Formats: sequence, C-alpha cells, structure tokens
Amino acid sequence: MKKCFSLLLAQVLFIICATAAASAGANNSPETAQKRERADRNVILIIGDGMDDHQITIARNYLTGARGRLSLDHLPLRATAQVLTVSNEQPDQPVYVADSANSATALATGQVTSRGRIATTAGSDNDIPTIVELAEAAGLKTGIVTSASVTDATPASFYAHVNMRSCENSSMMKDAMLYDRVRIDCSQDMKANGGRGSIAEQLISSGLDVALGGGLKHFELPQEGLQQTVLSAAVAEGFEVVKTADSLSSLKTDKRLLGLFSSGTMPVRLRGEDGREAEKPEPSLLNSVHWTQGEVTMPEPMLCEPEPASAETPSLSRMTEIALAQLSKGNERGIFLMVESASIDKQSHRRRACGSIGEVEQLNEVLDTALAFAEQHPRTLIIVTADHGQAAQLVPNISLYDAFGVPVFTPGKIVRIRTPENALMAINYATNDIVSEEHTGVNVPLFANAEGLGRVPPMVTQPEIFHIIRKYLAL
Amino acid sequence: MKKCFSLLLAQVLFIICATAAASAGANNSPETAQKRERADRNVILIIGDGMDDHQITIARNYLTGARGRLSLDHLPLRATAQVLTVSNEQPDQPVYVADSANSATALATGQVTSRGRIATTAGSDNDIPTIVELAEAAGLKTGIVTSASVTDATPASFYAHVNMRSCENSSMMKDAMLYDRVRIDCSQDMKANGGRGSIAEQLISSGLDVALGGGLKHFELPQEGLQQTVLSAAVAEGFEVVKTADSLSSLKTDKRLLGLFSSGTMPVRLRGEDGREAEKPEPSLLNSVHWTQGEVTMPEPMLCEPEPASAETPSLSRMTEIALAQLSKGNERGIFLMVESASIDKQSHRRRACGSIGEVEQLNEVLDTALAFAEQHPRTLIIVTADHGQAAQLVPNISLYDAFGVPVFTPGKIVRIRTPENALMAINYATNDIVSEEHTGVNVPLFANAEGLGRVPPMVTQPEIFHIIRKYLAL
Repeated sequence: MKKCFSLLLAQVLFIICATAAASAGANNSPETAQKRERADRNVILIIGDGMDDHQITIARNYLTGARGRLSLDHLPLRATAQVLTVSNEQPDQPVYVADSANSATALATGQVTSRGRIATTAGSDNDIPTIVELAEAAGLKTGIVTSASVTDATPASFYAHVNMRSCENSSMMKDAMLYDRVRIDCSQDMKANGGRGSIAEQLISSGLDVALGGGLKHFELPQEGLQQTVLSAAVAEGFEVVKTADSLSSLKTDKRLLGLFSSGTMPVRLRGEDGREAEKPEPSLLNSVHWTQGEVTMPEPMLCEPEPASAETPSLSRMTEIALAQLSKGNERGIFLMVESASIDKQSHRRRACGSIGEVEQLNEVLDTALAFAEQHPRTLIIVTADHGQAAQLVPNISLYDAFGVPVFTPGKIVRIRTPENALMAINYATNDIVSEEHTGVNVPLFANAEGLGRVPPMVTQPEIFHIIRKYLAL
Repeated sequence: MKKCFSLLLAQVLFIICATAAASAGANNSPETAQKRERADRNVILIIGDGMDDHQITIARNYLTGARGRLSLDHLPLRATAQVLTVSNEQPDQPVYVADSANSATALATGQVTSRGRIATTAGSDNDIPTIVELAEAAGLKTGIVTSASVTDATPASFYAHVNMRSCENSSMMKDAMLYDRVRIDCSQDMKANGGRGSIAEQLISSGLDVALGGGLKHFELPQEGLQQTVLSAAVAEGFEVVKTADSLSSLKTDKRLLGLFSSGTMPVRLRGEDGREAEKPEPSLLNSVHWTQGEVTMPEPMLCEPEPASAETPSLSRMTEIALAQLSKGNERGIFLMVESASIDKQSHRRRACGSIGEVEQLNEVLDTALAFAEQHPRTLIIVTADHGQAAQLVPNISLYDAFGVPVFTPGKIVRIRTPENALMAINYATNDIVSEEHTGVNVPLFANAEGLGRVPPMVTQPEIFHIIRKYLAL
C-alpha cells in the first residue's frame, strides 16, 4: 500500500488543481460560464391533485396488479412533502388540512397561505410572485396544462393573484353566489379598483406561452366593464386559440397557445359500471336494533368502464406533448411547465373510485411523456407530487372481523371494484355525509427523475419545492 | 489545466493500486477477508404497527408542530413498501389489505402469505424459515422488543410458526374460542401432533437471546400436556426472567433474557383527556330530516394527557437500550434486533388518537437509541417501516364546506385535539361502526440510516426488505 500514498497525494493535488482551473475559467469568461450554467434548463412539475399514497396504491392495484409498478414507481427519487396551511384570520396559526389553492400557492410561490387563496398572502392579501412570473422574466418559456379548467385553483396559483379561488371570471368578482350558498367577493381585485381582474382575464395578461385544459365558459364571458369576451381579448393579445383535439393535433403556429377543450372540467377517462359511485351498505332492520344482530347488504361489486365523453377531448399526455413541443420552439433558455391531473381529487370528492384511477393513469402517461422529453433534453428536472391528501381509503373487502359473525360495514359509502387480476378491492369514503368528501392533511408523496438526486432531500415542505425549482432554473 | 492531466493519471493509478491492494489482501487470507466481510454487522428493524403516513403526520403535528421534524424525518433515506397479502383459499389471488401476521411474516421470511398466519405458507401451511432463525444459525445474536405481548403477531412472525396468530398459549391450540365468537384451531401445531406448540412455547425453544415486552399471562399457563408453566420452562432453558422496570435496570446477567412487564399489551404513554376516545358528532333532529337543515354538535376538543399506568413499565426505548447492550456482550458476529411499537395500531383500532401519538413518540425514541448504537457500531443498518395502514385520517377541523352554512360532519367518530401549538387537529375514524376499526391497504413508508443508501431502493415490496436484511448480514 505504501506506493499508493504518493499517488494519494497526487490525487488530492489533482482535485485542488481541477477546482482552481474551473474557477479560473469562470473568471476568464463570466458571461459564457453564466450562459452555460443557465441555458436550456427545464422543469416539468406534475401535480396529481389529491394524489396521496392511498390513491396511488388503489390505482396501482387496478392498473398493474398488487405486485406491479407504475412509471412513478420506477423513478429514482422518492420523498415526502409536508403540506402547510395557515389561518387567514390568524396567519401565525397552523391549519392542518389544505385546499388546492393554498397548497398550489406554496408550490408556485414558496409561501404558506390560507385556504382558498391564489398566490396572495394570508390576512394581508398581498400578491406573491409566482415561479411562472420569475421564469418568464428570466426569458424561459412557461406553460400550464390541466384536466380542470385552466382557471381552476391549481393552475391559477401559478399565474394569477386573487383572494378567492372562485373568482374565475368577471361575473364572479362581486355580489356573486356560489351554488346559491356561498357569497363570493373579490372586489378589491377588480380592474375598476386597481386590481388585476378575474383569473381568466389574468391568464390573458400573464406571460404564459401555453395554457391547455378545460374552462371555455370562463372565456366566453365579457371582460370586466367591456362587451368583448375574454376569448376575443386572448386573440387580440396574440394567442392561437384551439378548442378541439383535432385542431390541437394539426396545430402549426408560433403564437402563444390557449387550448380550451371543454366548458369546465375536462371529461375523465374511467367511470364505475353504468356510472355507479360509492354506495351505502344496507343493514337489516334487526341490525339497526343492535350492532351484533341481523345482516348487511353490501353494494354489488363493479367493473370500471371507459367514460364515453373522454373520447372527444385530448388526453392529458397529448396536451403535455403539444405543450412541450410548442415551448421548445426556438427556446435557448429553458422551460417551466406545470401539468395537473386534476380529477384524481375531483372524482374522489364525488366518491368515484374508477374515475380517480383513470386520472392517476393519465398522470402516469404524462410522466412517460416528460421522461421522453428529458431523454432528449438531459437538463430537465421532473418532479411529481400531490397538493394534499384525499378521503378515499383502501379498506378490506372482507372485514378483519369477518370471523366474528357480526355484520361489519362502513358508516360511510363504499365502492367494490373487481380488478383485472380478478380480486375485489374496496374503497371507503367516509369523511362526511354531504355531496362532496373532505381533503385530508397527510404528508404527500414526491418523486423525481435523476436530476432530482442531490437536489431534493427525503423530506421537504411544499414551499421548499418552489425553492428547489427556482434554484435549478437559476431564477 | 494541462498540469492537471499528469495528476489525473496519478489519480487513476491510485485507484487501481488501492483496489489491487485490497484484492491482494483478500487473496492472501480468504478467511480473514470473509470474517472482515461478515463480522459485526447489525440490523435493527423498527416496526411501527399501523404507522402509515397519516399516523406520522398526526404525531408530527402534535409532537413537533406542523412545520417540525421527527427523528424519523432526518433519516437520509425514505422509500415506500408495498404490502402484499394473498388468500388462504386461493394463494395465487391477491388480497388488498393485510393484517400484522401476514405482513410481519413477509418482513421476517420474504414470503407473501394470508392474514392471520405466523411464518407459514398460505393454503399449504408449511413453516418458512425466519430471519431470526437464519441469523441465529449463522452465529448472530438475535432479539425482539415490543410494546405488545412478545407472543403477538408481529414479534411472533420472527421466531414462531403457526397457522393462527391467536395460538399464543397452550390453552388456545384446540377447541378454543376468541371473545366467545371465533373458533381457534391450531391442533396441527400441537406437540402431541408433532408440531412446535403454542407461540409462547415456541419462544422458549427458539434461539432468541432477548425477548422483551408484555404478555406474562401467556407464560404463566402450563406447557401443553404438562403441569409446569412456560415461565418455569424458560428458566430451565437458561433464560433470566425479569418482570419490572427496576429489575431490568439493575440487570447483570450473561444469560438469555426474557422480560415480561405486563399481563398482555403494555400500557401506552398518552391518552385522551379523562380517557376520552373518538366520539360521534350529534346532529339535531331537524338535520336528520334533511341534510341541509338543522345543526350538529361536534365532540369537545381535548388535550392529550399521560396514561398513569405507563409510569410502572419500562419505555420501548429503554427496553431497546437494554436489548442492544445484552446482545452486544461478547458478540463478534453481529445482531439482528426487531423492535415493534405495537400500539400505534392497537390505539387506532380503538379510536384513541392521543394513544397512537404517544406510541409514534416511543418509536421515535427507539430510533434515537438505535442511531446512538450505530454511532458506536458503524456497520449497523437501521430500517424503520410499518406493517400496514390504519383507519385514522387527519381531516379538516373546519370543513372545506363550512361556508355553505350546512351541518357537515363525519358519519364515523372523531377526535379533536388541541395541539401544543394551540390549533385544533381533527382525526376521523370511519372504516366501520363496531368496537374496532379496520386496517387499510395503503403502501407504507420506509426509512433507513446511511447504511441503507445503495441497498434500499425507493420502492420495495415487504418480502424484498427481508432479502435486503439477509444480504446485508450475509446470511
């Protein structure tokens, strides 16, 4: 070994020498070095709305079998993200369960805010710069793709600033009611009051190069105080507007791109057999007298089937593909693209397990598309994460207490799916009894491609994800 | 840079030289090399029973605040584990939700089996060698530490083989009833029938060097067909038996160690204020007429308080400390130690959120103890994981639909905890309405210390964890 020691010394000298040389190079030509450092770095942030570990496990069991792997599962980095929320009334007080508005705001701006807010601070209602704005200012091309309305809370948090997520169009800014029950007021954000206007109007005036998704109805309304629709304003602002899958596919334009493929949320890929959702088990009269007595009729098992309406609209991965191609044109500086699979959450709110499964599948395809892009563009950081947890729970189809011979069943609603591997999978929805389930406050999973190694630690807060992306893109 | 190239060459030469030297050493003395390769490798496997991401998030919010970190969260490796179960009747058919018996069997043996089984195969009922048996055969010292009975499903799967987890003592082997409702039959495992006997008897005849936990009642019963108790057999087999925290602390023995500190499951650390558990919200009569009408009375918020009984028994980390000290004595070959924080699960079954929080805290302290040991013994792989998911869900204290002005509440039971950071955290239990909640089928988190880097991939199945441990210990 002795002979090695002089060589070890040489090794140390080499490292010192090489570091010095690199540093000297930077000094010799700072501009070149800076350009080399910054040029063509891309981030694709894929958000599964409500995609907690239950949603992933349920979808994996259905799509690949219990022992299978999704594309997600092959990514080299897996971490967890803390979802942080504060109270609007007391912004120093934590709230333990988020909504998509405040959690997307954390991802988009690095700041923790209160539920319902789009890139504005809790309590003080100040606008917070978003990653899209920072990227755009630095010369990157930016885009959002979603299966919700492009004005929905998650995408909106990346380009708009408003105190209530429901202010998607000019008719919702003042004296508006949501579902005839909730008063909406964003009057401080009205243009008449010196604000930026509704979310749809803010999309048009944002620097976004590509926006694809649903939400046409918000753009067919007039701009605040004008007769002209937001859609015609978009054309005037230089957007190419497309409304069908065919026109998206045949697209040849160098303009900014606005694709609106449905009135509101886009159709989902899968639904329960004959459109069935979760149902209540039906205990016999005797069981309602005493819990150990009588019997219970469980909802019949179901298959998942294609949702016919989805055949008419482009898939999330197709939109991602077009967005990446469009953003890549003549682009030397790089891309920031956010893609949201929105209806993992929306279908779970409505207790539609098959619906959520299909949207995890869509997200997984988006990841495949992003990985193919990264193969061609090696300096591409792909992050996949969720914004918050959802109500759906994978529960035993045959209760752990089956041998006790008493009727055992959820107090909520349940879906029993016959999976392609011919087993029964039961999904429980029991956070409330009204028409829409709650979110949950669980930490959410985070995945990254190899570019994330050494950049994304095993645990992050959602605001830290913003800072990781910002640093990677040198913004 | 030119000067660097000769140094680069030197670097390459150094690597070749050093590799050759190491290889030559191995060739010169294969036995020494083998010993160096194998000696003093330790594995500490820490299992949080039912410790899914909800349990961790709930405990973190309470113990450290929403933005805080547990010791767990500082580990350099975070992965996920697929929980696999099959049907006993059709062992090629997946079952999507596990119990502790089959999931601990997967961890302990590398094989997927059916619910209720302890290290035996689904359907065919063959014994499967466990990691404890393999370690023991290779000369390692082995131990189990748990806050359940040492004969409970999780620890049992590491040293015993039986078809039903309830066969903890000789009285449960044949013609036995569990809770007067479930017929138990392990007659094929009776000694009279050529079997290994009950789990307690198998513990005594196993090669375990240390077993610490609860379950004294199972050892105070006679051995099968004899008048002598299992406890006296333990003494005859060379075990030092301890029953109190004091005697554990003052322990000076080179014998094998059996510590039984409570009759069954050990007392937990925390409980709800005045012993309160989750409670049903109480809707008004009007609300039961129509869901948009009337109002609801939610359970009062509570604090968590110390469970008095736990002051009398050693903490899980104290037992771990003693176990590691005991297993280290005169040990050249290494250690396999399994530590289970059992009542994260058991308290969640009973809808006691404070109880589960205290047991995540206990697990976190065990990790601190394990990390201190690893500091002294660098070749120590620490893996922390769960066996399966649990029912508890962190839900909004103020519903997402609060502004709708209708009463919104869980159909299940709920605990509202006032946390030390003075916010309200709501935990929902709603998988069934009987006396004990269900497990869930979600993937579970897995953590490791730096020894796991490069050895534990971002995603594993539970059987793969067995293979990682086996390879690390060169078994």
